[in-house]
Amino acid sequence: MAPVLGSYVRGGWHVPPHEGRPLFDAVTGEEVARVSSAGLDMAAVLDHGRRVGGPALRELTFHQRAGLLKALAGHLREHREELYAVSARTGGTPFDAKFDIDGGIGVLQAYASKGRRELPNDTIYVEGDVEPLSRGGTFVGQHIATSLHGVAVQVNAFNFPVWGPLEKFAPAFLAGVPSVVKPASPTAFLTAKLVELIVGSDLLPEGSLQFVAGSVGDMFDHLTEQDLVAFTGSASTAAKLRTHPGIVGRSVRFSAEADSLNLSVLGPDAGPGTPEFDLYVKQLVQEMTVKAGQKCTAVRRAFVPAEHVDAVVEAVSARLASTVVGNPGSEGVRMGALASLEQREEVRRSVKALADSGRIVFGDPEKVDVVDADAERGAFISPILLTGDPDRAEPHEVEAFGPVSTVLPYSSTEQLIGYAARGQGSLVGSVVTGDTGFARDVVLGVAPWHGRLLVLTQADAKESTGHGSPMPQLVHGGPGRAGGGEEMGGIRGVLHHMQRTAVQADPDTLTAITGRWVAGSRRTETDVHPFRKHLEELRIGDAIVAGPRIVTQEDVEHFAEFTGDTFYAHMDADAAAANPLFGERVAHGYLVVSLAAGLFVDPDPGPVLANFGVDRLRFLTPVRFSDALTVTLTCKQVTPRDSADYGEVRWDADVTRQDGESVARYDVLTLVAKKNTKSA
Amino acid sequence: MAPVLGSYVRGGWHVPPHEGRPLFDAVTGEEVARVSSAGLDMAAVLDHGRRVGGPALRELTFHQRAGLLKALAGHLREHREELYAVSARTGGTPFDAKFDIDGGIGVLQAYASKGRRELPNDTIYVEGDVEPLSRGGTFVGQHIATSLHGVAVQVNAFNFPVWGPLEKFAPAFLAGVPSVVKPASPTAFLTAKLVELIVGSDLLPEGSLQFVAGSVGDMFDHLTEQDLVAFTGSASTAAKLRTHPGIVGRSVRFSAEADSLNLSVLGPDAGPGTPEFDLYVKQLVQEMTVKAGQKCTAVRRAFVPAEHVDAVVEAVSARLASTVVGNPGSEGVRMGALASLEQREEVRRSVKALADSGRIVFGDPEKVDVVDADAERGAFISPILLTGDPDRAEPHEVEAFGPVSTVLPYSSTEQLIGYAARGQGSLVGSVVTGDTGFARDVVLGVAPWHGRLLVLTQADAKESTGHGSPMPQLVHGGPGRAGGGEEMGGIRGVLHHMQRTAVQADPDTLTAITGRWVAGSRRTETDVHPFRKHLEELRIGDAIVAGPRIVTQEDVEHFAEFTGDTFYAHMDADAAAANPLFGERVAHGYLVVSLAAGLFVDPDPGPVLANFGVDRLRFLTPVRFSDALTVTLTCKQVTPRDSADYGEVRWDADVTRQDGESVARYDVLTLVAKKNTKSA
Repeated sequence: MAPVLGSYVRGGWHVPPHEGRPLFDAVTGEEVARVSSAGLDMAAVLDHGRRVGGPALRELTFHQRAGLLKALAGHLREHREELYAVSARTGGTPFDAKFDIDGGIGVLQAYASKGRRELPNDTIYVEGDVEPLSRGGTFVGQHIATSLHGVAVQVNAFNFPVWGPLEKFAPAFLAGVPSVVKPASPTAFLTAKLVELIVGSDLLPEGSLQFVAGSVGDMFDHLTEQDLVAFTGSASTAAKLRTHPGIVGRSVRFSAEADSLNLSVLGPDAGPGTPEFDLYVKQLVQEMTVKAGQKCTAVRRAFVPAEHVDAVVEAVSARLASTVVGNPGSEGVRMGALASLEQREEVRRSVKALADSGRIVFGDPEKVDVVDADAERGAFISPILLTGDPDRAEPHEVEAFGPVSTVLPYSSTEQLIGYAARGQGSLVGSVVTGDTGFARDVVLGVAPWHGRLLVLTQADAKESTGHGSPMPQLVHGGPGRAGGGEEMGGIRGVLHHMQRTAVQADPDTLTAITGRWVAGSRRTETDVHPFRKHLEELRIGDAIVAGPRIVTQEDVEHFAEFTGDTFYAHMDADAAAANPLFGERVAHGYLVVSLAAGLFVDPDPGPVLANFGVDRLRFLTPVRFSDALTVTLTCKQVTPRDSADYGEVRWDADVTRQDGESVARYDVLTLVAKKNTKSA
Repeated sequence: MAPVLGSYVRGGWHVPPHEGRPLFDAVTGEEVARVSSAGLDMAAVLDHGRRVGGPALRELTFHQRAGLLKALAGHLREHREELYAVSARTGGTPFDAKFDIDGGIGVLQAYASKGRRELPNDTIYVEGDVEPLSRGGTFVGQHIATSLHGVAVQVNAFNFPVWGPLEKFAPAFLAGVPSVVKPASPTAFLTAKLVELIVGSDLLPEGSLQFVAGSVGDMFDHLTEQDLVAFTGSASTAAKLRTHPGIVGRSVRFSAEADSLNLSVLGPDAGPGTPEFDLYVKQLVQEMTVKAGQKCTAVRRAFVPAEHVDAVVEAVSARLASTVVGNPGSEGVRMGALASLEQREEVRRSVKALADSGRIVFGDPEKVDVVDADAERGAFISPILLTGDPDRAEPHEVEAFGPVSTVLPYSSTEQLIGYAARGQGSLVGSVVTGDTGFARDVVLGVAPWHGRLLVLTQADAKESTGHGSPMPQLVHGGPGRAGGGEEMGGIRGVLHHMQRTAVQADPDTLTAITGRWVAGSRRTETDVHPFRKHLEELRIGDAIVAGPRIVTQEDVEHFAEFTGDTFYAHMDADAAAANPLFGERVAHGYLVVSLAAGLFVDPDPGPVLANFGVDRLRFLTPVRFSDALTVTLTCKQVTPRDSADYGEVRWDADVTRQDGESVARYDVLTLVAKKNTKSA
């Protein structure tokens, strides 16, 4: 008997006493492993995540968590050959294995990078602007996001045993929320190998990742309002889980990503002989055969201008005819097996339903020639291309989760958009065209039904990641049939695991809560110029007031001549008087900020290394000749970099004139050295 | 018999043939109206919204929709006395009526204002940054949001018959999604009056607002993946609706806002005699008595340092004793009736459950003295204050939806946070303290269980809008028991009604789709300087390349002397050499952007009226002496203002040196006149 897969829970590997359900090699039909979660105390698993994993994660900043993701990605990359070896038994080719394994590692890397660049080196996230809530400015609002105190239960699909768990784990981890990974059984042995490598790395805080092979048992009965469930799989299972009393009763965040009838459109401009025609055909064949079409993003509905249907069928069929099916380890094999014999039966049933309303134009669902394998013992199937009638329901509703697509004719953009909607919500669609107007009309027309849309053109074809590849930077999910959820999407996926809270307070209190200086709150003018303080010495609210400097007509004329900026509002009294906003000559905005810097800068070498930028500069009131400018510079936010001997300091700059009115307001961004480092 | 309320559907008022369910005046017990939706074809109602309202709304830009909201707010303000008059029959005092009616009008105004300021004058919303997806830059990503093509079904609660419908309608309308407003029956006659005024205004496109008085019938069976349901009411009804097959089967967006056990905390610093103690007591009494405590945001759990419980009970009781209950129209009355006799029975039951685990210290649920009314025929009840044991379940789980709160002792911040969590998710909490450290610890500690948190201090007390008032700028909703939804939150509430789609394309195609110039896409250098073009003449991608200008050591020294910015990196060769980022003397960033303006500005009077700001300026590479600078200015986004004879134009500015490397990149913001206007 094959070994029983262990579950990694509560700090150790648990191997169930019972033999469990057998899992088979998709190519040879041999038993690979057995799977069972018998004997696991699911309430205790959740509790371990909440009591041990959560607190450990929440002690780390976003940057520290990002650093661990980066290290983990490096560790998995080093050991990826071990994953490739196991992956072959799921039926995939070496290309399929890379798609799953390298893709998963890529998600970790992307989140590591986004975490450092787009999140603060802190444990809370401050979202959006401070909202004024009162005239006098003593009462303001601000949204913050804090880590949920629960566990992210992640129920994965069989088709991506590595990428699936990692794309759910990465944003949860970055958010400070521990994960319980539950793989689909048919390929659970590969996810088990992944978890073995992760646990073996000893990089992650204990409790931040647990792994349950087999059924989730009564886990959902023990969920609380702080937990989340992310599910990938069939719409019917999604509906069942979504209505589970444990989820409904506590309003548990539930997100589903389900297979959908994704479309790909050939533009009317892209007839046979055009480069776009070839791109379309090549992409369609790729979507049909990669992972033997077992991708929830694969193209199921291939919309083609009516007059090009025959040409597309011919070209796609020719390519499919030369696609070698067989043992994924063998030379020249381009398509491996489905994940299981059950899956093949399911695909055959769906193909039959599609064929009843259309016609098979390539392949035979019951027969396929294979290389170095037994076509019946292994879960092999031929690629199947159909043509169909888009006015019937089946092409928009029946999904064959294998190497199966249907070519459907359309005759106008409007009609196409109507057909697209009949899919009732999809993960992804693509348009292949050289006509940007058509691309625009289709994208905006079908966007309400799609989570992602790809426009494939000659310009992006070389670098495009393709129709079927969700990207960590972009949302993955879609409305309706696609489950209505959103995964990844960069930092959106992190915030999904956090609670957004609107905080209302006076500015001083809000500053204390968020750790960012809020306009209207207390400033501290110290004896030492804040530019003389190292990163660790700076305090939020440290400020310098400098000035006044009187702006003269000579200054303005001199600046104009020096820079070449002789815009009439600065130089020509009559023309300036006619300007509806000024009424008289005014100083250059760039002169104002240049003079302000002249006022606040401390010239000698010190901890401030550079001014690397300015954010949200607004010229609020024109500066007239002989106005006297004062600038107040206040330390607003300090972001140490863990991997450098300096950090970023954001300063609030408020330039006022003699009557106290602000004439310009902006954020100055500087790099400031840490203490006792060589840069200081 | 009282008149039967009409429903406004499919472009007209429909009055049901049957007599319907009677609705009573909460004060006198007289029948006010009857309600029934018998005879309405709910599928046709949804279809009317989708076929008539949706397309009409989607033809308008965000700014145009915002303009209609503003006009509608003005219309309702003019007619608000008519609403006040009807409101009295729901049991509320004039103060309560303003809370509901003026509050609702305020939401329309806030969305009108946010729509113009924070949304483009366009029909799609472009969210976040362009995401690079390839090394060569030919393949990029961008999230857009488009209006859902369905209907927003809004199921409201009885306690806010005006504010409730308006706070759901405003963001839906701004998003371009038609609403079907379904009021709770007990106060449906006031919502009917509101809808009469809205329909009478003739301001809104037909189909953008429909009104169904009575039951929703089989409406949910006809929902699609493009529709949304927003529900306010009890957790049990929320759970029932959430699992409706019509919602689950099509992944319909469902958001719930349910009553919760909201807390208010008195800080340990705020003992008797402090101003914070008085603020706490006053707020608690206000929360108990406004709307007779029928607010899903009202304080149910009043956490008080153990040593101050007696003092709080005494002070609150004294205030409650002087709160006059009775006919809301009568002089001196501070608290009116509950909305119905059924509600009173429900409150009495809940008070009994609370009293079983605690103690009533003020009021008698069976007895109340009233002014100018019959205490039994009207739905009157006394304010009830209890004390309780926070280690028992009831104070955290039993909600009496009336003028009822329970004082609970705590002895440490950690213990308090644990108690807060036992509420299993709340809409709002408040902390009254003068200690910002305590405020910070409590806010960050309880944030994961809250949608909104208010810190009440001496500094914000005068201007605070109070614990119980959701604000349109801030999210309203909360996790777990509070329903897990989010309403309002400024533009977040608008985006909730739109589909987010990740678009992947080459830069030119993405520019065509979003109507914004994307870096890397085509520029058009025309013979005419783009500053000489009026708003309508400018095209996305219009560009000017200007330069070069060589930056000399003399320029830098002159600029330093002129502005006073003698930072060592510009002036001192040895010190600059020691700087880890520069290695030698460099030009001022402000000099670079000043010279760039000198290069790109067209000096003569013309359509460009002013440069009002700069966004996201980044200095990418140091500029060294004798570097030659060139600037490319490209028209990136054009936003006409409907109410002015100019609009905003955003330009991409890219300053490069002789080898083509970018040294600075930023957005320049200008106001540009429309053609044939007096400003031009």
